[in-house]
Amino acid sequence: MALKEILLTPGPSQVPHRVRAKLMEQAWYHRSTRFREIYAQVRQRLQQVFETKNDVLVFTGSGTVAMEAAIINVVSPGRKAVVVSAGKWGERLVQICEQYKLGLDVLKLDYGRSPTPEQVAERAKDPAVQAVYLHLCETSTGAKYDIENIGKAVRKVNPEALYGVDGISGAIGMACPVDAWGVDLFMAGSQKGLMMPPGLSMLSVSPRAWKVVEQNKGAPTYYSSLLRARKGLPENDPPFTPANTLFDAQNEALAMLVEEGIHNVHKRHAVLAQATRAAVKALGLELFPDSPAEVLTVVKSPDGLDSSAVIKTARDRYGVTLANGQGEMKGKMFRIAHMGYCSGMDTLSGIAALELGLKANGYGVKLGAGLAAAQDVLAQAPKEVLL
Amino acid sequence: MALKEILLTPGPSQVPHRVRAKLMEQAWYHRSTRFREIYAQVRQRLQQVFETKNDVLVFTGSGTVAMEAAIINVVSPGRKAVVVSAGKWGERLVQICEQYKLGLDVLKLDYGRSPTPEQVAERAKDPAVQAVYLHLCETSTGAKYDIENIGKAVRKVNPEALYGVDGISGAIGMACPVDAWGVDLFMAGSQKGLMMPPGLSMLSVSPRAWKVVEQNKGAPTYYSSLLRARKGLPENDPPFTPANTLFDAQNEALAMLVEEGIHNVHKRHAVLAQATRAAVKALGLELFPDSPAEVLTVVKSPDGLDSSAVIKTARDRYGVTLANGQGEMKGKMFRIAHMGYCSGMDTLSGIAALELGLKANGYGVKLGAGLAAAQDVLAQAPKEVLL
Repeated sequence: MALKEILLTPGPSQVPHRVRAKLMEQAWYHRSTRFREIYAQVRQRLQQVFETKNDVLVFTGSGTVAMEAAIINVVSPGRKAVVVSAGKWGERLVQICEQYKLGLDVLKLDYGRSPTPEQVAERAKDPAVQAVYLHLCETSTGAKYDIENIGKAVRKVNPEALYGVDGISGAIGMACPVDAWGVDLFMAGSQKGLMMPPGLSMLSVSPRAWKVVEQNKGAPTYYSSLLRARKGLPENDPPFTPANTLFDAQNEALAMLVEEGIHNVHKRHAVLAQATRAAVKALGLELFPDSPAEVLTVVKSPDGLDSSAVIKTARDRYGVTLANGQGEMKGKMFRIAHMGYCSGMDTLSGIAALELGLKANGYGVKLGAGLAAAQDVLAQAPKEVLL
Repeated sequence: MALKEILLTPGPSQVPHRVRAKLMEQAWYHRSTRFREIYAQVRQRLQQVFETKNDVLVFTGSGTVAMEAAIINVVSPGRKAVVVSAGKWGERLVQICEQYKLGLDVLKLDYGRSPTPEQVAERAKDPAVQAVYLHLCETSTGAKYDIENIGKAVRKVNPEALYGVDGISGAIGMACPVDAWGVDLFMAGSQKGLMMPPGLSMLSVSPRAWKVVEQNKGAPTYYSSLLRARKGLPENDPPFTPANTLFDAQNEALAMLVEEGIHNVHKRHAVLAQATRAAVKALGLELFPDSPAEVLTVVKSPDGLDSSAVIKTARDRYGVTLANGQGEMKGKMFRIAHMGYCSGMDTLSGIAALELGLKANGYGVKLGAGLAAAQDVLAQAPKEVLL
């Protein structure tokens, strides 16, 4: 019999049965009242989940479409973007700017670091800066960025600059009230906290961001064009064939999140992160980022031990998929996600598989030590935050 | 009880249960051997289905991503594209060129017309022309373009020009052997003949097209970049998070098509088209396009009768979804698709609903007249081409 699998990668995350049942439905016509009603509801629920009154658009595509849209429709010739780059996803933002030959100032930090408000403000104060881009969570390192205070610092030195936050892995798992924190462009993807397979990405656009977008009519972008997408918003009718069955399923997942209440969802992620970190400590391991995000825990592999071997044991012998480091971090870390439809028991399975994988690969671990520490955390958590 | 539905729109088409069962599976990690094996198989099966040895890439996105990629990576500054425009999809190709400010020569024809080889060659002979773009089927009018002979004529006058064919609605339903007909860039989408929901698009790229793409490194495109997509081809590892559950299901649908045999699939579409056209004639109605494609039948609404009313009756009373005209053709036609997982009985349901809708809205139709004519065609078709 095939292994019974538990998916703990920082995207894709597990999808609830209620949502997958929607995915199995027969195809249906997308230029229809049915679609328009679903898209309207998806957009309205995304506003609730992102805590914003801004327009929210949904693209059929990877999270990268939302990133591209947030940049190319905004940064005009002669102006520049400030990008925080301290991991693979910062590098992606940089690559997008470079491919489009946009003005660019990169605040480059070591992997695992998070920028201070002062560091970002220092770059943002140049009046040529049209927008600042960074992440709620840099998924490749597990680092959390202080979106609230960085935003305040940026607005202080450059009130005109737009504030673009990649929440692809962070959204829903971590608090990021878009309006309260002054986020003009908030990017998200379906396959993380939003409890769906990959295929949709989201972008919220503030009124002042729309003003900038309107001035960029000639931007070299078609599929990712915000002006084209906006034309269809009043009728909830996107310009290009939407993956309508995914929208329908996303609507179901959003209903579940709204029913639970987003603050409860945040707390659940925090509890699972805390449990995992207690286990990491009990196992004598170290966290990688200075300031860890709540949606995943990134752990350094013990000196001399290739994390790939541990991950392979966890997956091939126990059916638990943890993620490796990306790029030059491959073999050097474990990434254990808490995002989306992830329960306390899933988290314990992840810790158990990590322990078993470490032991099988020669690291002297006392089986159950991490589990007991994590159980302690779960035991103290209010019942309603557990799945 | 909700109406039992039959979907006969020219995208999305119906999805077989075997494929939908895949869509319901739990999410899984995309940076994995599992994904790489699936993508390899998808690409190889798409080569079989498109009858090509060229590289085939799959994008997560609407068909428009494949269109955009086929244009922006190819047409360089100072060169130009020839685009045939005789319907909504030709207009989309034109819009893409315009948004990117590319050199452009539009061969504009009345809706419903198909270009002759001479008309296209006349535009293509200019040495500044880098590529010619047109459709296998212009879905908005139901017109079929003569890809084989237009290609020959273009190569005769301009052997260097690339040949880009939008097969989004036509692929698999109509013959278009990519290599035999010299198609350099062949675009397709998941939600038509490929028997999937929307969400994936495909593009085949010939070796001579790759040469042009290589010279266009600086093209303003990131998500739709062919060079980025190519980097991952040897490992079957796309640059941006693929909608991996859709790839898995697409692989299943492709297996079904390959098992059936693509020539049989073409014949099935032709038989369903022929049956529908026999019905149209028997009902005293007229086809819209001069040269009708096999993947859908587009019928003029009788004088003075708004097709929207007929379509509404068919859908709201009988659960059969036919498509309306698009843009300025709305209210003036019926579009009945034969693409994908569509059976003889589905086709008869479409005709029955059309008859009932016409009668309910005051058009003097003899119920069953169209059905009988269509049945005659089905009765004569070899058993193996029917679903």
